[in-house]
Amino acid sequence: MENVLNNDERLVKQITPKSKDFARWYIEIIRKAELADYAPIKGMMIIRPYGYAIWENIQRLLDIRIKESGHSNAYFPLFIPESFLQKETEHLEGFSPEVAWVTLGGKEQLEERLAVRPTSEAIIGHMYSKWIKSWRDLPVLINQWANIVRWEKVTRPFLRTTEFLWQEGHTAHETFEEAQKETFMILEMYKEFVENELSIPVIAGKKTDKEKFAGALETYAIEALMSDGKALQMGTSHNLGQHFSKVFNIRFEDRNQNLQYVWQTSWGVSTRLIGALIMSHGDDSGLRFPPRVAPIQVVIIPISGGSTWKEKVLPQAQKIRETLKNKGIRVKIDDREEFTPGWKFSEWEMRGVPLRIEIGPRDIKEQKAVIVRRDIFEKKSVSLDSLADHVVQLLEDIQKSLREQALAFQVENTYEIDNYNDFKSLIESKRGFIKAFWCGRSSCEEKIKEETIATIRAIPVDESRKTSKGKCIYCNGDAKDLVYFARAY
Amino acid sequence: MENVLNNDERLVKQITPKSKDFARWYIEIIRKAELADYAPIKGMMIIRPYGYAIWENIQRLLDIRIKESGHSNAYFPLFIPESFLQKETEHLEGFSPEVAWVTLGGKEQLEERLAVRPTSEAIIGHMYSKWIKSWRDLPVLINQWANIVRWEKVTRPFLRTTEFLWQEGHTAHETFEEAQKETFMILEMYKEFVENELSIPVIAGKKTDKEKFAGALETYAIEALMSDGKALQMGTSHNLGQHFSKVFNIRFEDRNQNLQYVWQTSWGVSTRLIGALIMSHGDDSGLRFPPRVAPIQVVIIPISGGSTWKEKVLPQAQKIRETLKNKGIRVKIDDREEFTPGWKFSEWEMRGVPLRIEIGPRDIKEQKAVIVRRDIFEKKSVSLDSLADHVVQLLEDIQKSLREQALAFQVENTYEIDNYNDFKSLIESKRGFIKAFWCGRSSCEEKIKEETIATIRAIPVDESRKTSKGKCIYCNGDAKDLVYFARAY
Repeated sequence: MENVLNNDERLVKQITPKSKDFARWYIEIIRKAELADYAPIKGMMIIRPYGYAIWENIQRLLDIRIKESGHSNAYFPLFIPESFLQKETEHLEGFSPEVAWVTLGGKEQLEERLAVRPTSEAIIGHMYSKWIKSWRDLPVLINQWANIVRWEKVTRPFLRTTEFLWQEGHTAHETFEEAQKETFMILEMYKEFVENELSIPVIAGKKTDKEKFAGALETYAIEALMSDGKALQMGTSHNLGQHFSKVFNIRFEDRNQNLQYVWQTSWGVSTRLIGALIMSHGDDSGLRFPPRVAPIQVVIIPISGGSTWKEKVLPQAQKIRETLKNKGIRVKIDDREEFTPGWKFSEWEMRGVPLRIEIGPRDIKEQKAVIVRRDIFEKKSVSLDSLADHVVQLLEDIQKSLREQALAFQVENTYEIDNYNDFKSLIESKRGFIKAFWCGRSSCEEKIKEETIATIRAIPVDESRKTSKGKCIYCNGDAKDLVYFARAY
Repeated sequence: MENVLNNDERLVKQITPKSKDFARWYIEIIRKAELADYAPIKGMMIIRPYGYAIWENIQRLLDIRIKESGHSNAYFPLFIPESFLQKETEHLEGFSPEVAWVTLGGKEQLEERLAVRPTSEAIIGHMYSKWIKSWRDLPVLINQWANIVRWEKVTRPFLRTTEFLWQEGHTAHETFEEAQKETFMILEMYKEFVENELSIPVIAGKKTDKEKFAGALETYAIEALMSDGKALQMGTSHNLGQHFSKVFNIRFEDRNQNLQYVWQTSWGVSTRLIGALIMSHGDDSGLRFPPRVAPIQVVIIPISGGSTWKEKVLPQAQKIRETLKNKGIRVKIDDREEFTPGWKFSEWEMRGVPLRIEIGPRDIKEQKAVIVRRDIFEKKSVSLDSLADHVVQLLEDIQKSLREQALAFQVENTYEIDNYNDFKSLIESKRGFIKAFWCGRSSCEEKIKEETIATIRAIPVDESRKTSKGKCIYCNGDAKDLVYFARAY
């Protein structure tokens, strides 16, 4: 809203260009586009309406998939008693440095302090132990949309904040195989969702023991390459095995009347996805949102024609808006009188609206309008009759085009390297994904991290992993896997 | 899920009848119907999938109205620094006994303790002071869907819990009149929403100074009569005046270049609405949900015909399900083999599903099915061809019928009384709404509360309030208003 008082057509010029300083651009574009603002509490942010609308679109599109695959939503408590977190040692150690603790309720000092949930395995495990009695109760397939608090030292809007929003799925099954099947199904669902709805290509893979979730048997994740060459973990799917069912005593009578511990999974994506959208698709003119999740898909800018503005141009703009709305398109007219068309063009480009429609008196005389694509700035004049069909088609084209651009970037910035010196110089000069052989030992993984800041992002699930030929990039020992390294957020 | 192991056809018999012990029935039906369960943290609950689905329906239907009336959603932080709450004295005094405090982040003792939000006026006021500069920035119309924590002494699922879910609208305007218009518009929106979607008739009115929100200029609310004769506040809409804008310094340059404080409103409804649904519509057979918010609108019970069960009956049930699904109806087949049809009838009646379809081999031969209404247990046989149309019509009828039943109950249990002895004996014997004249003095209001537990629920906005004839029910002085008294949740 601060823009209102600052009538400057070269709006985007007030922002550090992305190509000049990526980190600074990221922070500035978020505030300038009014996606988020800093809160007066360490590491917290406000998600403003323009940013929150993206989250609502993500929620809607992902929630359909979660439900269609058989899950139901529920809601578990924000607070978790400390003794619950303590039951699973790895889990406690993983999260305890990051927990915000409630110690006072009203005036009363609590006997046991309460963790503000850093994740909900413990409280959900406790409830599952009460609800699950028989194999007939399985599988339990529950998801929760909720806020999460982790007391982070270094924060960055959307990517790492003290509080964030997410969904967390928690399932319980009769067998390991079923849990593993669920883990992979979700991993695949996340990949499909992110690639189709957010236009961001990802690598799906397993995490190393060092990088896995505290308390999981195995962690799988989708990883994307941001346009600065750093990797971002965009979603995780954990096979929890029986770690939590054993400590929370979640047992069921199986088909042979024997008591067994259930097999569990958990999985989640968060508001971090908004950070991924910004960093994957943004350019020096600002944001570029894929149409499916864009808060506004089409902005109509009436070109004022002096006296005919309110009588002729505005009604035509409103007519176009109604036609597009009826097609289910999210459309807005920018009819503010205090700004020039040029200023408006610049503002909505900066804010990433996929399509702009310009309409003025001359266009109306010719029964035409101008459509401009945000992704490649292509401009064309289209007859009003066919405008809506054009818009529908162009939105689909942009959705695809952004994904292709991001995929081309990923391919271009993925290197297969078999020499540690090349590895080091490449990670320094270009970043990107480096595919290299690894022996499977944590010691090599740690040394590489120490020396290059790069970590193993994924042991890919969809490529031939076993190889007899490869040698570990660090120790030159026999390789176990061909893995993806990168510097990561 | 515990039901699975407990094959007893007289399921509802395990629950205390509503007519016998309302309070106990309320608790038992919530657990038996798997709407919610107790959490291992004082006063907290888990909203289970069947209960959460109601909240999702409420959210969806209300969110449409919130957006259509021009508001956008956003998300503000869970934590509020203590100094922010301290700025508005009334507000602090109102909420401070109920605040859960975070005092530790990781291992580090916080310099200033953080309130887990009991409501968000303070943090939102702070942000509005940064965002609002000019009259051009107004109105600001923001809503948030969020979790809220209030450290309550006595709790009851859905009605009063330490944590609950709600929406809170927060708006800022140029003038008092605009803020007042917004306050009333929301009050009217809530009334229309609750009456049409939840089938619960309400009284819309102003709160007395004693009952208003801590920090508000005026509080308006919708109040409904539960079927035990106690009133429930179902939603509030506050005109905050300039209380918060003065302490948080939310100023704007007006159309004459003068600095002014904004005028604000806030308003909310919560998961308490689910409690209202249970208490308004339930009967001795269990829950009765209005179709628009029912998690499942139609349950299909295949009547097994021995060998033909899987080959003939189930496919026909699935065909019916697909037809209904295509009409946008939420439908479920109960095809569990371990239960008898009678047990299933009883279970889904108890869980409040508006319509049941029974289909067996004989029905299929006649190309018919039996439909049973949950609200009045009316049963009819309908040809399969016209089944879907019947279902659509019946769901509408039930939606209306539940509202009419609730309205008849409200009318029957609303008494106009002009004698304090009658007042006292009526509130003791029948509860209900008592309309009586009141002088407007807090002293009379307090005395009545002390002596009868009844409070003034509403000074109605839609009835003639001023009267020269009436005398205060308590002090016999000249009356200011004709108001609604009741014992309340």
